[in-house]
Amino acid sequence: MLESLKKEVCKNNLALPKNGLVLWTSGNVSARDKDTGLIVIKPSGIQFDDLTPEKMIVVNLEGEVIEGNLTPSVDTESHLYVYQHCPEVFGITHTHSPYATCFSILGEPMSIYTTTSAAVFGSAIPISKIAAVGEKAIGAEIVRCYKETACPAVLLKNHGIFTVGKSATDSLKAAVILEETAQSVYFAKDLNPQLEPLEPEYVKEVYDFYQNNYGQKKTN
Amino acid sequence: MLESLKKEVCKNNLALPKNGLVLWTSGNVSARDKDTGLIVIKPSGIQFDDLTPEKMIVVNLEGEVIEGNLTPSVDTESHLYVYQHCPEVFGITHTHSPYATCFSILGEPMSIYTTTSAAVFGSAIPISKIAAVGEKAIGAEIVRCYKETACPAVLLKNHGIFTVGKSATDSLKAAVILEETAQSVYFAKDLNPQLEPLEPEYVKEVYDFYQNNYGQKKTN
Amino acid sequence: MLESLKKEVCKNNLALPKNGLVLWTSGNVSARDKDTGLIVIKPSGIQFDDLTPEKMIVVNLEGEVIEGNLTPSVDTESHLYVYQHCPEVFGITHTHSPYATCFSILGEPMSIYTTTSAAVFGSAIPISKIAAVGEKAIGAEIVRCYKETACPAVLLKNHGIFTVGKSATDSLKAAVILEETAQSVYFAKDLNPQLEPLEPEYVKEVYDFYQNNYGQKKTN
Amino acid sequence: MLESLKKEVCKNNLALPKNGLVLWTSGNVSARDKDTGLIVIKPSGIQFDDLTPEKMIVVNLEGEVIEGNLTPSVDTESHLYVYQHCPEVFGITHTHSPYATCFSILGEPMSIYTTTSAAVFGSAIPISKIAAVGEKAIGAEIVRCYKETACPAVLLKNHGIFTVGKSATDSLKAAVILEETAQSVYFAKDLNPQLEPLEPEYVKEVYDFYQNNYGQKKTN
Repeated sequence: MLESLKKEVCKNNLALPKNGLVLWTSGNVSARDKDTGLIVIKPSGIQFDDLTPEKMIVVNLEGEVIEGNLTPSVDTESHLYVYQHCPEVFGITHTHSPYATCFSILGEPMSIYTTTSAAVFGSAIPISKIAAVGEKAIGAEIVRCYKETACPAVLLKNHGIFTVGKSATDSLKAAVILEETAQSVYFAKDLNPQLEPLEPEYVKEVYDFYQNNYGQKKTN
Repeated sequence: MLESLKKEVCKNNLALPKNGLVLWTSGNVSARDKDTGLIVIKPSGIQFDDLTPEKMIVVNLEGEVIEGNLTPSVDTESHLYVYQHCPEVFGITHTHSPYATCFSILGEPMSIYTTTSAAVFGSAIPISKIAAVGEKAIGAEIVRCYKETACPAVLLKNHGIFTVGKSATDSLKAAVILEETAQSVYFAKDLNPQLEPLEPEYVKEVYDFYQNNYGQKKTN
Repeated sequence: MLESLKKEVCKNNLALPKNGLVLWTSGNVSARDKDTGLIVIKPSGIQFDDLTPEKMIVVNLEGEVIEGNLTPSVDTESHLYVYQHCPEVFGITHTHSPYATCFSILGEPMSIYTTTSAAVFGSAIPISKIAAVGEKAIGAEIVRCYKETACPAVLLKNHGIFTVGKSATDSLKAAVILEETAQSVYFAKDLNPQLEPLEPEYVKEVYDFYQNNYGQKKTN
Repeated sequence: MLESLKKEVCKNNLALPKNGLVLWTSGNVSARDKDTGLIVIKPSGIQFDDLTPEKMIVVNLEGEVIEGNLTPSVDTESHLYVYQHCPEVFGITHTHSPYATCFSILGEPMSIYTTTSAAVFGSAIPISKIAAVGEKAIGAEIVRCYKETACPAVLLKNHGIFTVGKSATDSLKAAVILEETAQSVYFAKDLNPQLEPLEPEYVKEVYDFYQNNYGQKKTN
């Protein structure tokens, strides 16, 4: 079942190491099927080289495994919490990408210093409170930060990042842009700690332009 | 039409992720055909893995799509502005490469600290004023900085970089060398913020030597 | 003999460059066979591209070569010392991965700032005293640090890192997570030198959860 | 002629991008043939992807092209100067690898902080005076630094690095280890600028051990 979505979720999981966002097994992408509401997610503790669409796990919104022989990701509960509380979210990406995780360790929202991050995020990236691993507490923090800011990326304190989107690919894109931006911002703040971020009004203007003008005609 | 130039532009676009200059879709290379004056540029929002020469877009100097089924890059207007105002430019590269973008965020010209950057750029890399995304304002800032300094690379404030050249490959080379140099200069300034750049006279001498002695006999 | 273990050890050695943990030949993985107690280890000074399972060296606990035409790794004595003194260890990884080696040069234990490192290490990563290359002195320092802390990773002062585990793969995982974490912690400490690590009680709690909940059912 | 040496030189040139030491065309490896005294070197300005053994250039010690249709590397004169003045050198590598180049920009010898660099270099890496590009002045500075220190690596001020060895591979190894070490040392000095290097006596002891114990039986 859900063969096409399994392929998409698998491809986006494989894009994590390819884009330098994860080493080993510490990252995952999931998606929600529009028709059935079921969730497709990566199995737990499997190396990326060994991932195939067939190994993806299908769970329902309550976390019961509907299809798949492997244990779903240890982060499944966090993903499900977000899907339960955010009906507009159809894809979620979680990583410990090193530059973004730096800002999650620092424990403050990451301000916007580039037009690219302005275009994708629209506001500073919020930072969660600290939460336990694999618990609903993580999902609750993501939802709180996301609902308060409408920013599709959340820095999870002392842990890593979660991004949400209209599809698995959409959430992956936010995770890639977040890491790319975090890298340049880290370098710049390192050389000039007093650096001023972009004005919120300018950030908003860039965001509005980009949301309306970029990319090919979209179907999702 | 322009099959050979499409191949070259496609190859140079693919060289962006290969040289660590871009993630996702945020970068592009274009070229101007010497005979027709038409511009070949990357389509918007297409992942690099999916680029082929056939997908390249042909536009005229006014931005009308002459050939191609996809929307041209959101940065097309900026590229066109440069081609319109700089008849000697036949290739343009745009990236958000992380180390060079660090200097674009810092907001000052990047001085010359290595013989390699002296040889390719001949002077400090100029920094633009801030400009809106996808607007002629970006093109105008690139042209202003380029004409004022004759430097083939421009740091675009809080955005990324543009490089120009006698061909797509020539502009790509400048973008690669800029990122490589920015990396070493970032490290060195981080350990010694008072570091002195090379003397402008020495930079000029290295530039003149290199322009006359490097590489195979050139046809463009 | 030990064909299956040779394959596993070879695969884990090849994972070192793949995960960005080593350049050239400076790193190695070994494993102990459960039935015979023999050790399989990388040959010395062979480039990773040229490694095959057949080139792996089998030595006994006293360091005599049982099978293999090449000289075993110059670090073999250190590995053997650990196997001799820690019967629960069945895999060892040694690298000079750059971020973790930074902390080994700094010469202090590396505190825990992320839930991932809490989950894998359970406590701050201990730092050894300085020791000579290829000597039992290195093995003795690893064993001392490991026994004092129960942490599966040790920073070897001014040298690099050793990790131990229940298998070659298990020790490699610890080496990958250590480097990934060291990278984010380096960035964060660089921007905020006064940064506070996670509370030891929280680290312990995350560690206990993760040891019991992560990954597929294990056979080793 | 010299087919085997051309293969070796080509392979070592290809190892430059593979080990992250160069982007674009800015780096080169050469070797001297033991029987004829002729030098094999990379052609100038050719991208690494397009290098083949057949494209390697054979020159004599005076710089006359003996075989090859392309222009030899712009750095050929520097390589030749070293071969002319150092009869024990049979391989030379030149790069602008970013972390080592950071130290060449900083303009002071790079002290030894790790046992690996102690083992390979035996003393602090010397720094040259500044010199013009492609001139004998560069060769003269390399020779001066090398003869004064016996260190097989030289930081070329505001330029990059040169390493020498008993073969092309030997010089490449020094270039790889230099970059790997420079990276960790940069990180450590960034977090603690007052960091003390290893004692010269300890560096010497590690060097002597390593020179006599590492790797397989050697034929060159």
